[in-house]
Amino acid sequence: MTYGHLDQLAINTIRVLAVDATFKANSGHPGAPMGMAPVSHVLFNKFMKFNPKNPKWLNRDRFVLSNGHGCMLQYALLHLFGYDVTIKDLEEFRKIDSRTPGHPEANDTPGVEVTTGPLGQGFANAVGLAIAQANTAATFNKPGYNLVDNYTYTFFGDGCAMEGVACEAASTAGHLQLGNLIAIYDDNHISIDGDTKVAFTEDVLKRFEAYGWHTQWVKDGDHDLEGIEAAIAKAREVKDKPSVIKLTTTIGFGSKLQGTGGVHGNPLKEDDCKAVKAKFGFDPEQFFVVPQEVYDSYHKHAAEGAALEAEWNQLFEKYGKEYKAEHADLSRRLSGLLPEGWEKKLPTYKPTDAAIASRKLSEAVLEAIHDVVPELIGGSADLTGSNNTRWSNAVDFQPPVLGIGDWAGRYIRYGVREHSMAAIMNGICAYGTLIPFGGTFLNFVSYAAGAVRLSAISHDRVIYVATHDSIGLGEDGPTHQPIETLAHFRALPNCMVWRPADGNETSAAYYIALTSKHTPSILALTRQNLPQLENSTIENAIKGGYVAVENPNADITLLATGSEVSLVIDTVKELKEKHGVTARVVSLPCFEVFDAQSKEYRLSVLPDGIPSLSVEVMSTLGWERYSHEQFGLNRFGASGAYKDVYKKFEFTPEGIAKRALATIDFYKGTKPRSPINRAFQQLI
Amino acid sequence: MTYGHLDQLAINTIRVLAVDATFKANSGHPGAPMGMAPVSHVLFNKFMKFNPKNPKWLNRDRFVLSNGHGCMLQYALLHLFGYDVTIKDLEEFRKIDSRTPGHPEANDTPGVEVTTGPLGQGFANAVGLAIAQANTAATFNKPGYNLVDNYTYTFFGDGCAMEGVACEAASTAGHLQLGNLIAIYDDNHISIDGDTKVAFTEDVLKRFEAYGWHTQWVKDGDHDLEGIEAAIAKAREVKDKPSVIKLTTTIGFGSKLQGTGGVHGNPLKEDDCKAVKAKFGFDPEQFFVVPQEVYDSYHKHAAEGAALEAEWNQLFEKYGKEYKAEHADLSRRLSGLLPEGWEKKLPTYKPTDAAIASRKLSEAVLEAIHDVVPELIGGSADLTGSNNTRWSNAVDFQPPVLGIGDWAGRYIRYGVREHSMAAIMNGICAYGTLIPFGGTFLNFVSYAAGAVRLSAISHDRVIYVATHDSIGLGEDGPTHQPIETLAHFRALPNCMVWRPADGNETSAAYYIALTSKHTPSILALTRQNLPQLENSTIENAIKGGYVAVENPNADITLLATGSEVSLVIDTVKELKEKHGVTARVVSLPCFEVFDAQSKEYRLSVLPDGIPSLSVEVMSTLGWERYSHEQFGLNRFGASGAYKDVYKKFEFTPEGIAKRALATIDFYKGTKPRSPINRAFQQLI
Ligand SMILES: [Ca+2]
Ligand SMILES: [Ca+2]
Repeated sequence: MTYGHLDQLAINTIRVLAVDATFKANSGHPGAPMGMAPVSHVLFNKFMKFNPKNPKWLNRDRFVLSNGHGCMLQYALLHLFGYDVTIKDLEEFRKIDSRTPGHPEANDTPGVEVTTGPLGQGFANAVGLAIAQANTAATFNKPGYNLVDNYTYTFFGDGCAMEGVACEAASTAGHLQLGNLIAIYDDNHISIDGDTKVAFTEDVLKRFEAYGWHTQWVKDGDHDLEGIEAAIAKAREVKDKPSVIKLTTTIGFGSKLQGTGGVHGNPLKEDDCKAVKAKFGFDPEQFFVVPQEVYDSYHKHAAEGAALEAEWNQLFEKYGKEYKAEHADLSRRLSGLLPEGWEKKLPTYKPTDAAIASRKLSEAVLEAIHDVVPELIGGSADLTGSNNTRWSNAVDFQPPVLGIGDWAGRYIRYGVREHSMAAIMNGICAYGTLIPFGGTFLNFVSYAAGAVRLSAISHDRVIYVATHDSIGLGEDGPTHQPIETLAHFRALPNCMVWRPADGNETSAAYYIALTSKHTPSILALTRQNLPQLENSTIENAIKGGYVAVENPNADITLLATGSEVSLVIDTVKELKEKHGVTARVVSLPCFEVFDAQSKEYRLSVLPDGIPSLSVEVMSTLGWERYSHEQFGLNRFGASGAYKDVYKKFEFTPEGIAKRALATIDFYKGTKPRSPINRAFQQLI
Repeated sequence: MTYGHLDQLAINTIRVLAVDATFKANSGHPGAPMGMAPVSHVLFNKFMKFNPKNPKWLNRDRFVLSNGHGCMLQYALLHLFGYDVTIKDLEEFRKIDSRTPGHPEANDTPGVEVTTGPLGQGFANAVGLAIAQANTAATFNKPGYNLVDNYTYTFFGDGCAMEGVACEAASTAGHLQLGNLIAIYDDNHISIDGDTKVAFTEDVLKRFEAYGWHTQWVKDGDHDLEGIEAAIAKAREVKDKPSVIKLTTTIGFGSKLQGTGGVHGNPLKEDDCKAVKAKFGFDPEQFFVVPQEVYDSYHKHAAEGAALEAEWNQLFEKYGKEYKAEHADLSRRLSGLLPEGWEKKLPTYKPTDAAIASRKLSEAVLEAIHDVVPELIGGSADLTGSNNTRWSNAVDFQPPVLGIGDWAGRYIRYGVREHSMAAIMNGICAYGTLIPFGGTFLNFVSYAAGAVRLSAISHDRVIYVATHDSIGLGEDGPTHQPIETLAHFRALPNCMVWRPADGNETSAAYYIALTSKHTPSILALTRQNLPQLENSTIENAIKGGYVAVENPNADITLLATGSEVSLVIDTVKELKEKHGVTARVVSLPCFEVFDAQSKEYRLSVLPDGIPSLSVEVMSTLGWERYSHEQFGLNRFGASGAYKDVYKKFEFTPEGIAKRALATIDFYKGTKPRSPINRAFQQLI
């Protein structure tokens, strides 16, 4: 395969578009697009299959720009191939409400698979996309029906290579022998602090070899298009290992400042812009110019992609005749809807049922629904037995050659790698055929905060099974006991934080988590046993908050979540018997869902005129939104048996009653307004 | 060197103590202590210098148990050597308020250097301890005065090896050629999910080689004491690389379940406890038995350590005569006190001074004080030019052989590795001679959440320079704009979150951060310029909150932080001129510090009877604690020029005035109680 003038022209067109867009925005990163234009040209034209007219075609190759700051590269490519990204969109790069934001966002731009920019995330997302591909292929492909055989390609830079989340994901990918994953490392020796020699002198390829990857090095990524093509072709042939290609490039190729940090995160100066254009044969006075022959060439490849999809659609239709159930299942999965009636499998409980830890209640849900919701694919960050994330007859997702699972397996062993677990789940979700869940201790969801944030921004339906949710975990002590964690994720937009109080609330949490197509959920679950409550029903709990104990003319409303709900119910008795005080109880398992109910309903739960006290064994921050007074733990916990820890901090009926009485006393003679009443609506 | 009966007896004593303590606690991890008893015996007796009677002796060797769940190993060693850890303390393992909590905590147990347990942290702390040692040695050692020449040893397991934070730290340590760091990898093939073959099949030594480490493998860590000794001796000789020794051991050595996951996180069954004791020649019916000859032998080594310290004290005294200034400086540093009068160097500003971004104001502080506070050592996670963390004549902390800095350099290039930066800072702080600061975008402090939490638990004086603190960063867009971050860290106990509004507030933030010996600080700083305010003084701001604009008979109090303070001050004018409404303004740069003021003072700032509205361009969660109504951003931001983004979300004088009027209207006819008045005191 030889390359000629048109190839070079296309490559330079990409570079000049990146120069123009960043110059016009007076902001952005021209360096990476200019350096990676050659490999992009080769990869997208010689290898990648996709249909710009249907960016959601299942069997498209996936592309992830992990060094997302270089997004003008991706926007230029999307434009040239005919995705719905116009020259005007490129002109509005980094402008309010444009479809070309400062970093790639999956929901803003057609053709962007995942939201990247926070470094390392995209790389790990790519591992997730590759896992999803392998699992989907193993589940649905049949002899003569290679429905799913796409590759996942990712570009990553030095920053991604340094980030722990990508290191973790690379180790996982190596273990899993993901032959469908090809990563291209932009080895340009530059990061924001300048030459990478100041901080990053490791041998990256050797490290990837250690992980079990196939490695190659293309030494002249600026010019050696044949070498790039050969390396990618070779990588595609390696089926039993993920592949990394180290591509040595010149950042900002063509600029006066090429090869320096000066082109990384700042637009080129005006004279440099002109010089670049002149050098590449473009008119220095014109902006956003695309030669027609470049459009023609790129549109030709796009048309080939459209034809491939048309072929695929025929194949899929034929498949539907031979494999009716599979066809229906895959079609349904792609719609995002769950199987009809699945929710009937959710376990329900009576107050007379035994006390059970909510991590076990979560396990019971997974046990009950894994058959009827076959797109559920889950795992744990090496805490399977503690998180109770594995249903009894689960098969591990593993390369079959290891003899401990297969590609169709639905249980993923993430290892002690919380951050990459979360980022991999975001990638699995983005593939479109699976709903991922992953377990760790609630406290260690914090290790994954960078990726949880992207679950929320990206509208990913992923479920964090976060057990050992409080000081109730006991002996492991303060380093493992969350205090700030629920406040953290309650403050995160588009993220549901659930802390169920019993079995029915746990089923409700799963119901909402699974039926909310565009929102991640964190389920905070106990290590210790919880009794089944009187008024807890799935119907009540799916409102996010409800009255668990009603008492007319109550002196106080006690609010709680999770393990504290039964505790405040006990306190009602204590208050009545010892103090003649009448209390009512509200269970508030999910703020976000409760907030979405009608004001009328919310006021029925938290009415005007009654003082209220919230009880939760962690930071009180944020509870002021629902209660007049708050009892919590604004300090770290303690190591000891869980009942001793609760007692130390006075989370007992006596300790709560003391504060309830203080609250009643404080509000005596007033009729406090419900915190639900606000002066104005929040921006959400 | 040969080993005999007494060595084996000591090793088995450690094992049996771990068996007894976990059995008595009915909780804990016997496996790692039983497997790592041999290497501990060799390391502590043949190599480590320390004085149990003074666990804080500067030149002691540092030991970090990164696999902190194995803490009974460390507690047993501390007891045997004569630290203030008694048999009774071991009997109280994992009990409330004991000095033997479920994971090692630096402030609970004499001889525990850093708080570990959350996996990977200890390994990164050890890198920090080694950095601090190298820097302190280069700063204070003189010919004939090898004041500081200790090693840092760390044990780590498979879990730590998998965690991204440790991977990042290992890459940094390799780059920095830390010859004083020796890490011992407990290669026991077991983690909580069982055999590591399910998730962790990489070649760990090869990976460390790729990072630039010296590597060795001792294949029989259960028996080959000579091999262990030889490997450690060899590692000590390698001065230009950190060393890792892969030690293949049998987890739970001696138990019926040895070599399986069954001994990882659960006590041995009673019959197994007895069998272990019988096997090791102990009385199966007795508990917590230490043979006198083991005490004698360990106490002998402890006495040698005490003698070494006595020698060192003489050397240090002599040093004081020859190097008076250095002696005084080092002594002062060890006291934790700053140089007298240092605070006079803090920049102050007049309202007529130019508007400056608070990230630049932070730079001005560092520029002004770095000479008078020589223990300041800082850096950035590859955002030096954006975080403004480097004073103009700073020297990089680098191995001199690279030609780009030296060991006495005080600027650390952390690379794009936020999590390990934070964990390394915790280690630097723990060394005792330095105050670390580190820069990244506020949004990416979340990547480091696991380590920030340990800064707080461990009472570490570390400073997070967190720039680009809001939607005010503009074009980089939602993936980089914090929404939940301040709520997250405000909910974290013992962590000061500062969001200064101008120059004097920035100086105040540094003043409190540097003088708070036991608390980490996060300084949230703007990218955009901020005007210098009228009533802002260091004296006011160090109270955490103060009245920025007073107006008698005000209709409303407007509260804000950082960039929004000048905005609400503009709103005062808008309200007066267009609506005839009188407003007062409160700047609240640090909740935690404000909370520590007297109630009288807090009520003077937020008085009864006036409705209040808080304004901050991020999650409102938690603001209900200080204000009646809240204007914030409970959704993700947008990519665009910062003024356009502010305008989009109505953070303008008009937008704020609208909400202020709604607030006044809502509270009309009431005299709302100040949120400072509460029914009862919180547990802190
Ligand atoms: Ca780079
Ligand atoms: Ca292990």
